[in-house]
Amino acid sequence: MSLVVQKYGGSSVSDASAIKRVAQRIVETKRAGHSVVVAVSAMGDTTDELLELANAVSSDPPPREMDMLLTAGERISTALLTMAIRDLGVSAQSFTGPQAGVITTEHHGRARIIDVTPGRIQKAIDEDHIAIVAGFQGIHEDTQDVTTLGRGGTDTTAVALAAALGADVCEIYTDVDGVFTADPRIVPTARKLSRVTYEEMLDLAASGAKVLVPRCVEYARRYNVPIHVRSSFSAIEGTWVVSETKDGDPMEDPIIAGVAHDRSEAKITVIGVPDVPGSAARLFETVAKADCNIDMIVQNVSAVETGLTDISFTLPAADGTRALAQIEADKAEIGYDEVAYDDTIGKISLVGAGMRNNSGISAKFFAALRDAGVNIEMISTSDIRISVVTRSEKLDDAVRAVHSAFELDSSEGEAVVYGGTGR
Amino acid sequence: MSLVVQKYGGSSVSDASAIKRVAQRIVETKRAGHSVVVAVSAMGDTTDELLELANAVSSDPPPREMDMLLTAGERISTALLTMAIRDLGVSAQSFTGPQAGVITTEHHGRARIIDVTPGRIQKAIDEDHIAIVAGFQGIHEDTQDVTTLGRGGTDTTAVALAAALGADVCEIYTDVDGVFTADPRIVPTARKLSRVTYEEMLDLAASGAKVLVPRCVEYARRYNVPIHVRSSFSAIEGTWVVSETKDGDPMEDPIIAGVAHDRSEAKITVIGVPDVPGSAARLFETVAKADCNIDMIVQNVSAVETGLTDISFTLPAADGTRALAQIEADKAEIGYDEVAYDDTIGKISLVGAGMRNNSGISAKFFAALRDAGVNIEMISTSDIRISVVTRSEKLDDAVRAVHSAFELDSSEGEAVVYGGTGR
Repeated sequence: MSLVVQKYGGSSVSDASAIKRVAQRIVETKRAGHSVVVAVSAMGDTTDELLELANAVSSDPPPREMDMLLTAGERISTALLTMAIRDLGVSAQSFTGPQAGVITTEHHGRARIIDVTPGRIQKAIDEDHIAIVAGFQGIHEDTQDVTTLGRGGTDTTAVALAAALGADVCEIYTDVDGVFTADPRIVPTARKLSRVTYEEMLDLAASGAKVLVPRCVEYARRYNVPIHVRSSFSAIEGTWVVSETKDGDPMEDPIIAGVAHDRSEAKITVIGVPDVPGSAARLFETVAKADCNIDMIVQNVSAVETGLTDISFTLPAADGTRALAQIEADKAEIGYDEVAYDDTIGKISLVGAGMRNNSGISAKFFAALRDAGVNIEMISTSDIRISVVTRSEKLDDAVRAVHSAFELDSSEGEAVVYGGTGR
Repeated sequence: MSLVVQKYGGSSVSDASAIKRVAQRIVETKRAGHSVVVAVSAMGDTTDELLELANAVSSDPPPREMDMLLTAGERISTALLTMAIRDLGVSAQSFTGPQAGVITTEHHGRARIIDVTPGRIQKAIDEDHIAIVAGFQGIHEDTQDVTTLGRGGTDTTAVALAAALGADVCEIYTDVDGVFTADPRIVPTARKLSRVTYEEMLDLAASGAKVLVPRCVEYARRYNVPIHVRSSFSAIEGTWVVSETKDGDPMEDPIIAGVAHDRSEAKITVIGVPDVPGSAARLFETVAKADCNIDMIVQNVSAVETGLTDISFTLPAADGTRALAQIEADKAEIGYDEVAYDDTIGKISLVGAGMRNNSGISAKFFAALRDAGVNIEMISTSDIRISVVTRSEKLDDAVRAVHSAFELDSSEGEAVVYGGTGR
């Protein structure tokens, strides 16, 4: 008998009939002989409705109270899902995040899990109950206040519970069949990956793939929790996210996992910065003051005659206005001529653990972009990823060209991509 | 500086604008120089909506899960009220029942408070915050599960917090101006009482007065917490519920506090019961098995020739069918001829602490009923109350007749009723 942790998001429990469908699925897993722990999000529209109420009574809702409010959402979905399972004649109990022992930092609205003490959950499964746990929430031990985990919080709850309980698998149920070699809306021939490594998934997620958030993958990687991303609308196998050596057969690994894209970033270019030690530090201290995360950075070779250079960086477009205002406020300290803002950029990333041992990947990547007439504005690389920034309107062409160049399309031979990389 | 505990019910926080109005009122109390703790119910329709969802996913929702579900309601109202207060520039913090230290029995759906450990609330008010506490809920210490307190739960939460914190007053905000000498819908000349004793309020509440539930009054009496029942729609003084000797001037006490009525009961008559020791015990053991509360009991003088008697009792009509079914199931053990059920009865009660020391009250009461042509079916008395059961359709006439006979109408002299009782 194995222990399975399952995660269902808000769209899977959007109303009473959806909840009953999910209950049926959970009961089937239990009846197949597994112990089952479930992390669940708030019902579809609940969070939006609660946010609307908060904005109706307050111009600036305090984060602690916002967490008190929003955590009502999972309390409701958790209780209802447990009732629906009990109605099918199977024993189940609901637990809040604090009851499940999800201990977090105190950052309301974006807390991070620092420990999981799943004593009550372990007891529930030892007593043959299905444990239904409110996702997205935890408790800060010093204040004993409830916290929320921010974006991807329920996925992270599920993986953290799986790690703490030593589960055999963490199944993330979603509205797609798994992780694809590219977004099927852009590349209709994109292929579902049967397996991807934590590192690849991390880079895909950080590069714009929406199916999992990086923090959840990072948590799974650290505790070596196998994730199975699959559809809540079908019974077919999805994508396994596992460690590279899990099967002891690296020969089976593909060179390239997939092509990710991201339209959510903007580019800021600071022109005429003195090319002396400390310039970049001052600029990025300013950006940090505005609490913005930076992605890619490029610094030009400075002009000999002026001793000035330009620095460009990308960041989430949502942070753009804030960063820009801070840079303009600190103009005197940074010392630059002008600053430019561009939110019509797109980023394409090629990700694959096999890159490490394969030459020619970059050449093929840039050739594909050239042939598609895509101009490159910025480049960044890691050992398993190449990313470039281009014009937003060229991004779909770029994704299709690269996907095709690396023979990722489902009509073409898998064998070319998988295996035989000589590692 | 005094400590004020306030209670607001679901209709006082029915939507965003109502919440903002209540926030304003709370802030005014704080700005008048008091420390303020507030117990609040779920927003108007929330509980009904949650119950509807529960019934949509389950034919028989388990009580533990029902409590998990319903307690989301106060979590929402509490957080929103706190946000609205903060928006007015005043410091406030929300707390769930468990966070406020409300310890209860484990009876989900109808838990009783067994202790309050208000450490976090005391700390909050010491630090000059307004503490907003979710009413109607607590925690069972052994299971660490959340519980709900059942009917009147938020009133009881408020009084329990006031007792534990040593508050100067517990203000219960409602949609009427206070406690009246009779229901103003039946007796338009009914007068608002400025003061009533715990004992009188207990008997009024137990006799059908809706403004407070008995358990809340009982809690206040035990810990000597002054209750001020008042309207959330006006600033006028309401009714104080206090101990008899609170002011050290019993001369001021009225003989009669008021006339209560109740249409929610039914009468069961068991005919032809052997008049031997143990008969009544067997009957009421049967009713107890069905988990029904009994109000009045009358046993006829038995007929000499048969040695049989009839026993009548009243109980909440909502329990009637259940009790009847159990009595019919246990017919052989109880040993009776037949059983009759009547849910067209009404009960009128006259309540007043002054009765203890005044003769002639009963005579005047029965004379008033006789003059109004009201037939009496059952009688029960305590030292400060007389109740009779009559036909439901005669109840309004009975209330008006008694109210008038004891000169409780507001157009008549208060002096006749208040004071001068020679005690």
